[in-house]
Amino acid sequence: MSTDDTSDAREQLLSLANQFYEQFEDGTVPSMEVPTRTKTNIEYDEDSGVWVYGDRTSTRSANSVRGAQKLLKATYAIDFLARQLEEGRSSTLRELYYLSESWDLDEAQFSSQDESNQLIEDLEIVSGVTREDFHMRPEESGATVMGPLEIREQTRRGEREIHCQEDVGEGGYQIPNNPDTIEFLDNDADFVLAVETGGMRDRLVENGFDEEYNALVVHLKGQPARATRRLTKRLHDELDLPVVVFTDGDPWSYRIYGSVAYGSIKSAHLSEYLATPEAQYVGIRPEDIVEYDLPTDPLSDSDVNALESELEDPRFQTEFWTEQIELQLDIEKKSEQQSLAARGLDFVTDTYLPERLTEMGVL
Amino acid sequence: MSTDDTSDAREQLLSLANQFYEQFEDGTVPSMEVPTRTKTNIEYDEDSGVWVYGDRTSTRSANSVRGAQKLLKATYAIDFLARQLEEGRSSTLRELYYLSESWDLDEAQFSSQDESNQLIEDLEIVSGVTREDFHMRPEESGATVMGPLEIREQTRRGEREIHCQEDVGEGGYQIPNNPDTIEFLDNDADFVLAVETGGMRDRLVENGFDEEYNALVVHLKGQPARATRRLTKRLHDELDLPVVVFTDGDPWSYRIYGSVAYGSIKSAHLSEYLATPEAQYVGIRPEDIVEYDLPTDPLSDSDVNALESELEDPRFQTEFWTEQIELQLDIEKKSEQQSLAARGLDFVTDTYLPERLTEMGVL
Repeated sequence: MSTDDTSDAREQLLSLANQFYEQFEDGTVPSMEVPTRTKTNIEYDEDSGVWVYGDRTSTRSANSVRGAQKLLKATYAIDFLARQLEEGRSSTLRELYYLSESWDLDEAQFSSQDESNQLIEDLEIVSGVTREDFHMRPEESGATVMGPLEIREQTRRGEREIHCQEDVGEGGYQIPNNPDTIEFLDNDADFVLAVETGGMRDRLVENGFDEEYNALVVHLKGQPARATRRLTKRLHDELDLPVVVFTDGDPWSYRIYGSVAYGSIKSAHLSEYLATPEAQYVGIRPEDIVEYDLPTDPLSDSDVNALESELEDPRFQTEFWTEQIELQLDIEKKSEQQSLAARGLDFVTDTYLPERLTEMGVL
Repeated sequence: MSTDDTSDAREQLLSLANQFYEQFEDGTVPSMEVPTRTKTNIEYDEDSGVWVYGDRTSTRSANSVRGAQKLLKATYAIDFLARQLEEGRSSTLRELYYLSESWDLDEAQFSSQDESNQLIEDLEIVSGVTREDFHMRPEESGATVMGPLEIREQTRRGEREIHCQEDVGEGGYQIPNNPDTIEFLDNDADFVLAVETGGMRDRLVENGFDEEYNALVVHLKGQPARATRRLTKRLHDELDLPVVVFTDGDPWSYRIYGSVAYGSIKSAHLSEYLATPEAQYVGIRPEDIVEYDLPTDPLSDSDVNALESELEDPRFQTEFWTEQIELQLDIEKKSEQQSLAARGLDFVTDTYLPERLTEMGVL
């Protein structure tokens, strides 16, 4: 979020408004083209190794009252964002929705938050600038990091230098909304271990796993916030650290892995900014349920549906995932991370993770 | 969580096991009595100003197979907890559930996590020791603090001294699972502002509200974790700071206030440890919706039911709450904290909070 990024974001937004202006001047109906954002319009990009939008586009055009209103709202939103950037301020998506009530033109006001969220995503896609660079903050906050890493965070109150083991409590370092305010100063880390649940994150920290194995333990807190995914990607790209993801063994958790590694359909325009395609899946794997005889729950109908839909998902079309998902549909069971405790509280740090990470070539 | 507390907790647990042993020796059927935990069995305690369990009790007795099994499980759990305390370790509620699978006696294993959670609550009530002192960690983690407060946290890796403005990033200080490991070193705070949503917490921090008004901004993150409530109570009791709660204006948010101020029915045995009866409610109040003409949503059927149930709840039988809830049922509307943005991004910190807090005598 340097000054350069900020003025760049502002310029991109204003050039979009300018485009509408020029269309008017030319006597053509103003319009804006955005990629179609559905599962059938994402494709694998060989160069970046992530899934991005394909060629199909939708047009928001002023040739209907509805379309004209959409562009009007876009113009008001651009005006607000440009002023926000000029003043060095930020706001949340929800605030933008409510703020529109104060706009002088009733027709420019958003009728629901879905509408304003969608517009911001459209603006991201069309301008090529991320929401963070518009200074739009999410509602969801990022999670925490614990491990041998020293960072410098640029806050509104000046710089803060923080070592993510020595200068933090047991709760760890809280990732800010925009992790691009972080600079990596120094580290002794060998890899990043992204963990789904708080219970497992605390187990690893209590057992000193981050110290013994030089791991950066990143808590995903369920479906990870953009800030968490962005930081994970930066740790991989800039510090050259392998990233491994450790979740429960059920279809919803595989999607958590998927959002770290491949990006989501909703934010495929951000895959290169958020996704870490090299991220590997540690477990819990269906094969672990069998091999370690873990305590299980039966798959529900919605679990089965989610697994079947993953088998169809282009992002899960690998030998590894096909095998694991088919095995799970076969055994009809799922297990949580913490079910490893059935073998004792230290099993995960003394045996499970060291064995698996060695096998994966991470240790 | 000093060594004294730990050995005290261990002793209390062992004396409970000892009670069963003596009952056996006397030839009486072993049993354990716990308060009935329903809405009809909580009462206001004049001395402490919080709601606690009344006189009605339920007996867990070995005079049935089911009852005997409950006591068997209690004994195994006590054995595990006593060893955990001896070894200076901790675990989560979920780990306890899974760990029971490794116990030698099948009959002692928990059949669901509800059962093991309930047992731990029973043990808390009967022994008078909190779960934190058993070293049982929650799944949910505490939230964050930002403000003029310097603390010392006792971690497994030694002491950490942290100033909750100067030594943290924009995300703030992450509250540990057991905030009794925190010692308050120094502060310039005038009051504690507990905030429901992340979006509003970030707005206050961005606008520098903590600096300008010497406020400790505690993020509640929805229904607050025990750690967050415990820390809030300690800030009130030990530092003599007024506590005010700032949430959305709907029945679910009033419950969030209620859990900070009065404690919950489920954990009425912990009210004296977790509740801050002096906590005051800032808003969003139904009167604000009218006075500030805030953007609203209509009340849903479940909102109406929740409001009506609050009118019946002994904890909400005050003039203030009766008036506000009846007004809300009358206007049939609710508003979110962030709807204040309809009056501009600074309205909340320049006008709404200063006016309200002055009126309440906090500023």
